[in-house]
Amino acid sequence: MPDKPKLIALFTDFGIDSPYLGQMHAVLAASGVKQTVIQLIADAPRFAPCPSAYLLSAIARDMPGGTMFICVVDPGVGSDRRPIIVRDSDQWFVGPDNGLLSQVARRSGKAEIEEIVWRPEKMSNSFHGRDLFAPVAAAICSQEYKSGPGIQADTLAGAEWPDDLAEIIYVDAFGNAITGIRSSSINNNRVLDLCGTPVKHARTFSDAPSGAVFWYENSMGLVEIAVNHGSASQLLDVDIGSQIDILG
Amino acid sequence: MPDKPKLIALFTDFGIDSPYLGQMHAVLAASGVKQTVIQLIADAPRFAPCPSAYLLSAIARDMPGGTMFICVVDPGVGSDRRPIIVRDSDQWFVGPDNGLLSQVARRSGKAEIEEIVWRPEKMSNSFHGRDLFAPVAAAICSQEYKSGPGIQADTLAGAEWPDDLAEIIYVDAFGNAITGIRSSSINNNRVLDLCGTPVKHARTFSDAPSGAVFWYENSMGLVEIAVNHGSASQLLDVDIGSQIDILG
Amino acid sequence: MPDKPKLIALFTDFGIDSPYLGQMHAVLAASGVKQTVIQLIADAPRFAPCPSAYLLSAIARDMPGGTMFICVVDPGVGSDRRPIIVRDSDQWFVGPDNGLLSQVARRSGKAEIEEIVWRPEKMSNSFHGRDLFAPVAAAICSQEYKSGPGIQADTLAGAEWPDDLAEIIYVDAFGNAITGIRSSSINNNRVLDLCGTPVKHARTFSDAPSGAVFWYENSMGLVEIAVNHGSASQLLDVDIGSQIDILG
Repeated sequence: MPDKPKLIALFTDFGIDSPYLGQMHAVLAASGVKQTVIQLIADAPRFAPCPSAYLLSAIARDMPGGTMFICVVDPGVGSDRRPIIVRDSDQWFVGPDNGLLSQVARRSGKAEIEEIVWRPEKMSNSFHGRDLFAPVAAAICSQEYKSGPGIQADTLAGAEWPDDLAEIIYVDAFGNAITGIRSSSINNNRVLDLCGTPVKHARTFSDAPSGAVFWYENSMGLVEIAVNHGSASQLLDVDIGSQIDILG
Repeated sequence: MPDKPKLIALFTDFGIDSPYLGQMHAVLAASGVKQTVIQLIADAPRFAPCPSAYLLSAIARDMPGGTMFICVVDPGVGSDRRPIIVRDSDQWFVGPDNGLLSQVARRSGKAEIEEIVWRPEKMSNSFHGRDLFAPVAAAICSQEYKSGPGIQADTLAGAEWPDDLAEIIYVDAFGNAITGIRSSSINNNRVLDLCGTPVKHARTFSDAPSGAVFWYENSMGLVEIAVNHGSASQLLDVDIGSQIDILG
Repeated sequence: MPDKPKLIALFTDFGIDSPYLGQMHAVLAASGVKQTVIQLIADAPRFAPCPSAYLLSAIARDMPGGTMFICVVDPGVGSDRRPIIVRDSDQWFVGPDNGLLSQVARRSGKAEIEEIVWRPEKMSNSFHGRDLFAPVAAAICSQEYKSGPGIQADTLAGAEWPDDLAEIIYVDAFGNAITGIRSSSINNNRVLDLCGTPVKHARTFSDAPSGAVFWYENSMGLVEIAVNHGSASQLLDVDIGSQIDILG
């Protein structure tokens, strides 16, 4: 298990515009962080820790060992929700205890979780990504971070959420509709029902006729509903939160 | 005061899409710049040096000492507007003399300002960010830049603009409407009038009922009009340039 | 001719949102790549290798020597289209053989082209940018890449495409409509016809009246149709694929 992170990845719902991502990068750079900082995703489901949690868990699966994720989907910023750190094997996750880190904490079964009790001298009420989470990440990188009290996994927000979420959790820039269902959890012969449309499996885009709707195992290991050379989201009029039924 | 910048930050209205930001990054990298280059903001008010000037000044306040800002909101590119450098204590600002740097020059009261008279061998008429400002920034980083003639602050474009701008100067990705008014300049008991809607103060999002409009001191120290779990910009139908009245 | 790349640039149609760019950055960082990685463009014409090829060629012209471009506009991912490397003087291009690299291969006249026959242990069917092209790029950077069989330029997809493409190939964030015509190929006194609108030459934005349509040599050396302080794309209702006629 590495002593310190090799890579930092930002997972947020800030939107790719706005100065907020740059301000977080600036804090990390000014803190002397030498690790590469990757802008991983800025359009996680907004104000929505639940679908974001399943997306984070799927993306993290294939991210390199030694990655520290700074995770900010934080509609309760400024309230008394706890800031936490989850360490799962060789990855770190820093963020709010609002369910966002529940799935990475749970899938390993042996994650170490702690509360962040450190506070900066000056902290805005609305931007803990810059004022709390980024400085904590920098301190972990420089091995100057002092651990806080441990937290039991079953007390985390979102601890009661299901293993797989049978909903659309993300729509990518191509209009592909990503679900919270791991494809390893269902057989390829299963048909999905997405808002009344039956959807069958195909291996990948180039195996489906142009314009046809299909589901496949995407590059994160999730069930994704797609249209070859088209937008599933537009064609089926679905978005984050749309329900999936797994038919016989 | 540091001899050379520790960090470079790009402040532009280019839009986050398009190849223009990448082309500026490439010039900096190819020039041997070792400093971290941060994509700070690419959606500054387009073609609008005035609101951009107030946004820049507010963001710069909390950016690290040693930051050099390359600032390109430059509708007059190709005309005879002067390119300039403003040095204010431990920050540098490189950009056009069209008002964009007026507020950072003025708030310190002791900024050093100079004209950029150096020109590259080859310069496009439409992209001075890549062809002029980035190379100048790289030369400052390598301490090979030769100073140009000094400029008096009161001759800068925008020197006559007010201390605070009672307008919306930026709408972020959440729909929060940021004004050019520093919150330190008004009391928390003041009510704002935004296009006919009275807006009262709250400490932060989590203190306001869901859907309620309020103003608060944002993380840049500006008065920001927001809606908890909603978009102030959409709800009030306001955008950059919308006027604010400060009521009694 | 440099032995190895000094700079890596990502040229994709992924959209600036979504986690896909970050996942590619992560593979490069985890592979020990020391070169600066530049997010060059993520909104290349989607699913459209032809206009993308002309855009890539124009952008590459002014990018630094030693740049390696990872090029992913790849609607046929998962099919049997070949992955290739084009080396043209001091630049590298890694991507699919679907026409995307045809113009960079052809304009030099002496590019070296080879097929990528290496495959990773595990490769998704839908994301070769992360699973194939980024690891190949990393191996080239560390000089551990073993060359594949050579390819003749005239067998590449797109080898028969014209030298200049008289169409809109890109619309930037300002609404400027970029064509696939190199401005060096036509005289400044030529009038263009864009969907019925005659368009004359101007030197640059500040030479044209506000609101007037003109064409000029843009910063990539291409003919670009623009409106001073406005959006040519909106005003003329044109988009990628709109045809240009060069009048007498």
